[in-house]
Amino acid sequence: MNRKEFLMSMGALAAMPLARADETPTPGAAKVRPENAYTVGKVPFKVGVAGYTYNKFKLDETLDQLKKLDVHYLTVKDFHLPMKSTDAEMAEFKRKCADAGVIGYGVGPIYMNSHEDVDRAFDYAARLGVTTIVGVPHRVVQEPKRHNVEDRAICEYVSGKCDEYRINYAIHNHGPDMPELFPTGRSAFEMVKDLSPRMGLCLDIGHDFRANMDPADSVRLYGKRLFDFHLKNVTDNSKKGGAIQLPRGRINLVDVVKALCEVNYTGVCALEYERDFSDNFAGVAESIGYFRGLMDSVCA
Amino acid sequence: MNRKEFLMSMGALAAMPLARADETPTPGAAKVRPENAYTVGKVPFKVGVAGYTYNKFKLDETLDQLKKLDVHYLTVKDFHLPMKSTDAEMAEFKRKCADAGVIGYGVGPIYMNSHEDVDRAFDYAARLGVTTIVGVPHRVVQEPKRHNVEDRAICEYVSGKCDEYRINYAIHNHGPDMPELFPTGRSAFEMVKDLSPRMGLCLDIGHDFRANMDPADSVRLYGKRLFDFHLKNVTDNSKKGGAIQLPRGRINLVDVVKALCEVNYTGVCALEYERDFSDNFAGVAESIGYFRGLMDSVCA
Repeated sequence: MNRKEFLMSMGALAAMPLARADETPTPGAAKVRPENAYTVGKVPFKVGVAGYTYNKFKLDETLDQLKKLDVHYLTVKDFHLPMKSTDAEMAEFKRKCADAGVIGYGVGPIYMNSHEDVDRAFDYAARLGVTTIVGVPHRVVQEPKRHNVEDRAICEYVSGKCDEYRINYAIHNHGPDMPELFPTGRSAFEMVKDLSPRMGLCLDIGHDFRANMDPADSVRLYGKRLFDFHLKNVTDNSKKGGAIQLPRGRINLVDVVKALCEVNYTGVCALEYERDFSDNFAGVAESIGYFRGLMDSVCA
Repeated sequence: MNRKEFLMSMGALAAMPLARADETPTPGAAKVRPENAYTVGKVPFKVGVAGYTYNKFKLDETLDQLKKLDVHYLTVKDFHLPMKSTDAEMAEFKRKCADAGVIGYGVGPIYMNSHEDVDRAFDYAARLGVTTIVGVPHRVVQEPKRHNVEDRAICEYVSGKCDEYRINYAIHNHGPDMPELFPTGRSAFEMVKDLSPRMGLCLDIGHDFRANMDPADSVRLYGKRLFDFHLKNVTDNSKKGGAIQLPRGRINLVDVVKALCEVNYTGVCALEYERDFSDNFAGVAESIGYFRGLMDSVCA
């Protein structure tokens, strides 16, 4: 190599980094999510649907929708499986659910005004083989309004049945419109805290928020007694609050999901979508999708 | 107060914390999200739908769906508004969109094989008054395969038109099946980087991922030239990858949303949902919901 050749080769070397800087940068190879990551994600809980959402649809239509949404957990309402169903009818119901990949993991909400109502509900749940009853235990007593005493008596009766049947009972709260029907998660917790450990809450965060409670706080405070969960969003933290698609309401669901992770809730978050009952497929789908987004992103 | 009274009062004081600890804790007052927080959230970009999603539906049905989903941005495809539409037809189209609260913010994807095609597209976009053309500039030359040279020539012509019309042109990438049609975001960036600053990308993350690129990286690397964005998920990082609901695919969209925030993308993320075209309302709604979940939770 002579001097000229040497200088030329040095020049070529010096030019290389410049040429490289001008090259189009290349992204890394695709990072591939595991298959079905969205169903076996990092959160401890599962997404489901509360049967009441589909009160205008027959069981077959309901299961078709759940299949389309790839949702596998349903709280069974009596309009889809009447309480006086025979064992054969229950077997047929379970076969249809299994064909759609759906587990009827609980029943309710069931209103219970008497010991007979309670007996009937536990018999129904036991024959169906579910682990959870979502219930509203109360006595409608017009005059005088003695509901507190009567409710306590029914709940003590329920508590005994829980231990006898080894079934969990989750009291569903109802918001400010019905002060006698457990308006908040707090009121339900207050009832169950000294009863069987199988007595707990189905926290309806829509109603809790409508009663101006912070649902994320409720999850944190009553998490140990949280057996079921009604997922929803609403338009206001008052009686005026109506149901709305999950992304669009006034509840900060990011906080709620954080709280569910903190208390390690391992149950089902059942969407109870109480809007456009006859035409709710898009609203339900948007809501399920939104919750899946939070499930994928909120918890560490 | 005598000694006995004093001790009793001390005892009462000492007992108080115990009594309080037994009280049911009360959640804080509801924290209320601002109204429409999901449409004016903390992310710089907006959610929309690419018209191709609704290729089996007429404009009216499409707008009905967008209204139901509260989606306000649509990329206009020619089957909803033919390129040879008269000005009166365009005005009628815009009136219908406005009634549904929808903005046709861009047109395309439009395939362009010749200068005449390019002229027609710019005329169409200018008459409609949109800011962005999503395009696929290429020449189909069977023998010999000279597409690179021909594509460059068309893109240079497009580049001049961009400056003349003050319209952005976003090259849409097509994945590994069509190597001649900009298979990756990288290949589109390579074409535009030396052309008018109005030449950029409509990054289709589904196709980018199918070409085994990391779409979040592509967003980061080419973010300055990102003018439009095709939001989707797919089942595999190869040619086998097919369209699927956003939560259910193999692309980690949490990373992609992070990247979009990092580069401060202020455009539209247009869902191009290429599955069950005749029966896609639930799939689109689940996908829009999922993206809204990420928009609410991923970025700081």
